Amino acid sequence: MTGQDAPTHVFDEAVALEPIGENLFRGRTHAAWANMVGPFGGITAATMLGAILQHPEKHGDPLALTLNYAGPVAEGEFEIEARPARTNRSNQHWWVEMRQGDEVVTTATAITGLRRETWSETETAPPAVPAPEELTAATSDRGVRWVDNYDMRFVTGGWDDVASGEEQPESTTTMWIRDAQPRGLDHLALTSLCDSFFPRSFLRLGRPVPAGTVTLTIHFLATADEIAAQGADFLLGSVHSHRFHGNYHDEAARLWSRDGTLLATGTQLMYFKS
Amino acid sequence: MTGQDAPTHVFDEAVALEPIGENLFRGRTHAAWANMVGPFGGITAATMLGAILQHPEKHGDPLALTLNYAGPVAEGEFEIEARPARTNRSNQHWWVEMRQGDEVVTTATAITGLRRETWSETETAPPAVPAPEELTAATSDRGVRWVDNYDMRFVTGGWDDVASGEEQPESTTTMWIRDAQPRGLDHLALTSLCDSFFPRSFLRLGRPVPAGTVTLTIHFLATADEIAAQGADFLLGSVHSHRFHGNYHDEAARLWSRDGTLLATGTQLMYFKS
Repeated sequence: MTGQDAPTHVFDEAVALEPIGENLFRGRTHAAWANMVGPFGGITAATMLGAILQHPEKHGDPLALTLNYAGPVAEGEFEIEARPARTNRSNQHWWVEMRQGDEVVTTATAITGLRRETWSETETAPPAVPAPEELTAATSDRGVRWVDNYDMRFVTGGWDDVASGEEQPESTTTMWIRDAQPRGLDHLALTSLCDSFFPRSFLRLGRPVPAGTVTLTIHFLATADEIAAQGADFLLGSVHSHRFHGNYHDEAARLWSRDGTLLATGTQLMYFKS
Repeated sequence: MTGQDAPTHVFDEAVALEPIGENLFRGRTHAAWANMVGPFGGITAATMLGAILQHPEKHGDPLALTLNYAGPVAEGEFEIEARPARTNRSNQHWWVEMRQGDEVVTTATAITGLRRETWSETETAPPAVPAPEELTAATSDRGVRWVDNYDMRFVTGGWDDVASGEEQPESTTTMWIRDAQPRGLDHLALTSLCDSFFPRSFLRLGRPVPAGTVTLTIHFLATADEIAAQGADFLLGSVHSHRFHGNYHDEAARLWSRDGTLLATGTQLMYFKS
């Protein structure tokens, strides 16, 4: 099917933006991506990056993105302002702000750039794990709707460990993940996947606790051709925390392709209560 | 000595800012912090955070900071605009921009916040290393002036490995570091220390190559009292890269106190040529 009858993917529906002025875009929250409060942070991050990628002055591919979750995104419309702060020969620096009414709900900076061939090496290999086909897809009874959009196959530190009610000695979760409805990988999908791990505090404490990401930084370590080459295949993700202290903990995530190419890192600071 | 005759520390001289209007501050580059081109990125990061810390509306202590190096900072004066994007009950989100004339040279976002006691654990222990007193202070003949401000004691992956001209199989550098001229640790000094490792590309390739940080994210995992408790003692830093590819590589740094408290992580994306 083509044209206006073409079926759209639930991810593309959520990140869709309408240009409404210079540097300005309008979007709306999507029920299929609902989290405990407001939308899943990964889809908000992808939507913010999407404003840059459809900006007429965009120069190069995404290199880095920092998202700051300033307040809850309410159900309904939002406005995104994406503005180049500086454009250099080989890269470009961006300011991005999401607003609802007079309130700033999310801020971001991003860098896009051109990449040329250099010496190349992945120093951090993926952990040795079974193939996703040997694992069972996780059930999605986690009380939040957005997880239905993904096929997650936990290797270690899965949701069962949270549901067990027992404290865990380590914060690591390793899982295979892909879109439940197949879709070719791109920078926006990869952005969302970087935020697809449940909070590490849940795992360590053996129960869901009040928690939320306050800031997420993604470094795109792969070039656009490498990202496109993944198609709709599973990615391998692994995440852990370095420290939990005084209402906050960090999270360091890495996402590899099935062939061991490190595509991106995602680094978070999360609020939590114990 | 007290009053106007009091000697000032070279770090405090560099981060000094004069308020010049609403949300606006003026500073100037300091010759003692010169890097290959422009000032050392760590001192620029600390100066940007300093604008927030002396802002009259500041709410809480630094939780996270992302610095984007948009262009070289020229020798001389600069202006910093630091503006709260949103203030919540327990945290505050900031926009910060450094300009010289009409040019944006650095952008940043930061989050400050209040912290209360919670369950606490450092999951990532420091590597086992000799005490700094058992190691020799590194010589500062690296062709850049800012390194003179620090007493660095390399454990592994030191500058000698770069000077040797041989490619190294791993990108890890572990070192003890403190101010050469003693000064009590605070958020600004810790910010600067997060950027005090030479580029990982130098170590892997066994030679200095054109390289520079494009973005640096710091997560403050320690509370203000823990940071102040370090005084002027050595911190233990360890950094490595996950991947080098297409002109860019990442860097993941961790900084512990001598007693094993993880104070902060610093995550970078660096440009490099090979």
